[in-house]
Amino acid sequence: MIQVYTGNGKGKTTAALGLTLRAAGAGKKVYICQFLKGKYYGELRSLKKFKDIKVEQFGAKCFIRRLPRQEDIKLAQSGLRAAKKAILEKKYSLVVLDEINVALKLKLIGLKDVLGLIKCLPKKKELILTGRSAHPKIIKAADLVSEIKEIKHYFKNGIYARRGIEF
Amino acid sequence: MIQVYTGNGKGKTTAALGLTLRAAGAGKKVYICQFLKGKYYGELRSLKKFKDIKVEQFGAKCFIRRLPRQEDIKLAQSGLRAAKKAILEKKYSLVVLDEINVALKLKLIGLKDVLGLIKCLPKKKELILTGRSAHPKIIKAADLVSEIKEIKHYFKNGIYARRGIEF
Repeated sequence: MIQVYTGNGKGKTTAALGLTLRAAGAGKKVYICQFLKGKYYGELRSLKKFKDIKVEQFGAKCFIRRLPRQEDIKLAQSGLRAAKKAILEKKYSLVVLDEINVALKLKLIGLKDVLGLIKCLPKKKELILTGRSAHPKIIKAADLVSEIKEIKHYFKNGIYARRGIEF
Repeated sequence: MIQVYTGNGKGKTTAALGLTLRAAGAGKKVYICQFLKGKYYGELRSLKKFKDIKVEQFGAKCFIRRLPRQEDIKLAQSGLRAAKKAILEKKYSLVVLDEINVALKLKLIGLKDVLGLIKCLPKKKELILTGRSAHPKIIKAADLVSEIKEIKHYFKNGIYARRGIEF
């Protein structure tokens, strides 16, 4: 089954993380591939407690707020390869591709690449794709799509991202 | 800060759980109060790994798909008391009130009760309220509101809730 968490609101990555927690609690093995992320995130420290959850990051130290560079493309491409390997590896029941929608939007990876990943998903596995601006063709290919809409956000009141809450 | 995750889409409870994971990873203590839930959920088994996360359930064995009974009201009221205690307890930085919006909608608890909890939140703490149909006054009182909209759901294609994915 293919699930997509998209939209401009807070809660996409955390929804995928919560799902990971639930799956691991039910004895499933999980692989998380984080695109565009490469720095400390509170969740990484927590996930280390689980031998059944593997996380790999394929992004520069800072989440991209600049024009993509060659190194970003290289990292994202490595992410794609790692994701494909995990999808095909028998042991993982759940594969999370965090921020893959944004990696696609920024053209670090191609639409064909992502649709290719979706296509090779074995029937009994679960694939989660997160990130705002999900491509219409990905939405079409998905079995479940949740759009997380920002109704209100404290960032607009001058609150900055806080450790343990936003990262 | 007060965060609300509402809407008819999949991802509200898991978003709160992911936030819990992130907060615990950053060394914060978390209290989770689950209204309307009282049976096995995969996430509970995972959360047991964390000494900094405490979960309590205040619901009947099955998520309510029947008219509320006196016992449901009693349980929800106990949840309210436990939530208030945790909010005021110094050690918790993050308090999650899972499905509280639904408990309110079903009139197991009153609007005044929930607004009262929000009002007594110490300034540096984070309070998360989840559940569809959040009351407009709760949305008004919140600092952040994410509405999780169902764009597509496999339930509509005859797929049932699956262990490790939906619970």
